[in-house]
Amino acid sequence: MTLFDFHLLSRDSSTGARRGRFHTAHGTIETPVFMPVGTRGTVKGVATPQLDELGAQVLLANTYHLFLRPGADIVRDAGGIHAFMNWDRAILTDSGGFQIFSLADTLKLSEEGVEFRSILDGSKHFWTPEDNMRIQEDLGADIAMQLDECPPYPAETSVVATAVRRSADWAARCKTAHTREDQALFGIVQGGVFGDLRLESVDRLAALDLPGYGIGGYSVGEPHELMLESLRPVCSAMPVDKPRYLMGVGNPTSILQAIGLGVDMFDCVLPTRTARTGTAFSSTGRMNMRNLQYARDFGPLDPTCTCSTCAQYSRAYLRHLVTTKEMLGAILLSVHNLHFLLDLTARAREAIEAGAYGEFLSAWLSSPAAEDY
Amino acid sequence: MTLFDFHLLSRDSSTGARRGRFHTAHGTIETPVFMPVGTRGTVKGVATPQLDELGAQVLLANTYHLFLRPGADIVRDAGGIHAFMNWDRAILTDSGGFQIFSLADTLKLSEEGVEFRSILDGSKHFWTPEDNMRIQEDLGADIAMQLDECPPYPAETSVVATAVRRSADWAARCKTAHTREDQALFGIVQGGVFGDLRLESVDRLAALDLPGYGIGGYSVGEPHELMLESLRPVCSAMPVDKPRYLMGVGNPTSILQAIGLGVDMFDCVLPTRTARTGTAFSSTGRMNMRNLQYARDFGPLDPTCTCSTCAQYSRAYLRHLVTTKEMLGAILLSVHNLHFLLDLTARAREAIEAGAYGEFLSAWLSSPAAEDY
Repeated sequence: MTLFDFHLLSRDSSTGARRGRFHTAHGTIETPVFMPVGTRGTVKGVATPQLDELGAQVLLANTYHLFLRPGADIVRDAGGIHAFMNWDRAILTDSGGFQIFSLADTLKLSEEGVEFRSILDGSKHFWTPEDNMRIQEDLGADIAMQLDECPPYPAETSVVATAVRRSADWAARCKTAHTREDQALFGIVQGGVFGDLRLESVDRLAALDLPGYGIGGYSVGEPHELMLESLRPVCSAMPVDKPRYLMGVGNPTSILQAIGLGVDMFDCVLPTRTARTGTAFSSTGRMNMRNLQYARDFGPLDPTCTCSTCAQYSRAYLRHLVTTKEMLGAILLSVHNLHFLLDLTARAREAIEAGAYGEFLSAWLSSPAAEDY
Repeated sequence: MTLFDFHLLSRDSSTGARRGRFHTAHGTIETPVFMPVGTRGTVKGVATPQLDELGAQVLLANTYHLFLRPGADIVRDAGGIHAFMNWDRAILTDSGGFQIFSLADTLKLSEEGVEFRSILDGSKHFWTPEDNMRIQEDLGADIAMQLDECPPYPAETSVVATAVRRSADWAARCKTAHTREDQALFGIVQGGVFGDLRLESVDRLAALDLPGYGIGGYSVGEPHELMLESLRPVCSAMPVDKPRYLMGVGNPTSILQAIGLGVDMFDCVLPTRTARTGTAFSSTGRMNMRNLQYARDFGPLDPTCTCSTCAQYSRAYLRHLVTTKEMLGAILLSVHNLHFLLDLTARAREAIEAGAYGEFLSAWLSSPAAEDY
């Protein structure tokens, strides 16, 4: 097996769903896959041995945040991000492009690169695509994402068109600058909700023959249906033999719909962020554990769930932890919500293997769990 | 073996240290023992399976906090505190007396009982010793503490004398009101730093022949040396065949010194509270993990420690988590600090068994770890 080879095991006949396998130096990733997010090198509230028990195959960490703290040189000197955060399986680093354009005070954007201020101390930084590659090589994840320009939503066609062209130029420069053979560089498709720009982005990136492609610029405020409508032709146009990673999309229904369009990889902070607000995913829809109805409910959080939280703690206890703002509430709900998405994607893989993804998706969409996502 | 029998396995010849065994319906407690504190039915940041792995034998929960939220009736209906918090080993509930007198707005104190306001919503509550017993029986811990009056420090002799007499009267009423045969009722010795009042308290409580005794009213602001000096005659006067529990004292040096005076049980929020401020116990003294000196220190937190945090994570990573205020920092340091005290008391037990507690204590007191406690 060759590093970064993407092997398609099976394709569903009634949908675009694919069952694949992506080889990295830190294990094989079975796709479709959900990647828990550890922005600063930690999935909030969940230690790495627990993530392993949950069946996480690949974690995401963020270059922007790790660059600011503790600094890419410290992560490099620790032996890389795997050693630093004690995770032996695969890791993907986002380039930080999204954070620069959404969080940071972006000062100057040119063909050369982007100048921005730190959200922490206001310090100025300038990144070229080459700088970004050097930083991500220091971090040492298995998959690095190209530096891209992420336009807001909504944005004028001309703004999005410029971002598409600049991002494609930067992808080429990232490819040239990238040297680590144990790290795959993924391009990022942009184009917002403009079909022709999306296709131009796909064409330009496909020509670079990168080992995989992100699909960026979704889940930035556009209506859910518009995302799905726009995503379909993008997936159809993307190279068949490369993994497709829909960035930042993590609600269960969107994940399953996008798998049906041929997406292979997902990440989102939703499971842990939702947990910290006291809300649990469940087979019957989201549950706000603050709700008084759970005060004397001594049954498990979700009777159909096999996670350690559901096996050990009652709804009444979880409600008590959440209402008293005890850390353990966020921890136990994070474990449950991560299990929920990891288990959902595991079942999606099984359904594709069984040639029954269409039925699996239909069953989900007609279940109470699909309604509030 | 009889429930609540306290069996002394050995006594150290050069100190007052004792190695004992206390039988409860949820397992035997090997003493001297440190009891992690789970005030609201959760040891902050640490799930019960981890506490089991850490070797915790008995946890402490607080009646005042559980009475206010979620309510003793909910804990009772959940099947008791063990089922509610998913802990099969022993549990001790403090009566809440300390919280009423320190946290709460105490409205009225009489021989009959105490009226206080909730710190949560200002609601008025009135507890007699009998009410407190009923609440603790609803919670269903293995060990219940009597309701006592806790005078502040410093306090006039007359104030402390009244508290001693009232607490002893209340202990007798608690004993009469207490009905659960699977729950041991402990009395609480008061008397502040007044030797004669301490001895009066011991005499009056010993006459009740309770299965164990707390020693309250220390660690409330008095100088460390004064506590030790005052504690020695108290321990000497207490019944030999009953466990002695020094309430709220948890720094390593005080624990070891008190073991040398014949104390058997300890509890304190110190390990988890210290962890949440980013500070670790260690064999070389406390370590403030915010310190810049750890930024590039890729070695384990404490090279002599066998806990899961020290086995898996570096000082540099822990510093990163603490400086970025990531939950995992508090979690990993809580695990380490709990391990530190549980391991220290386990080694104290071994030293007593080996007839070498004096040497063990001397070695600790001359080590760098002893200095800053």
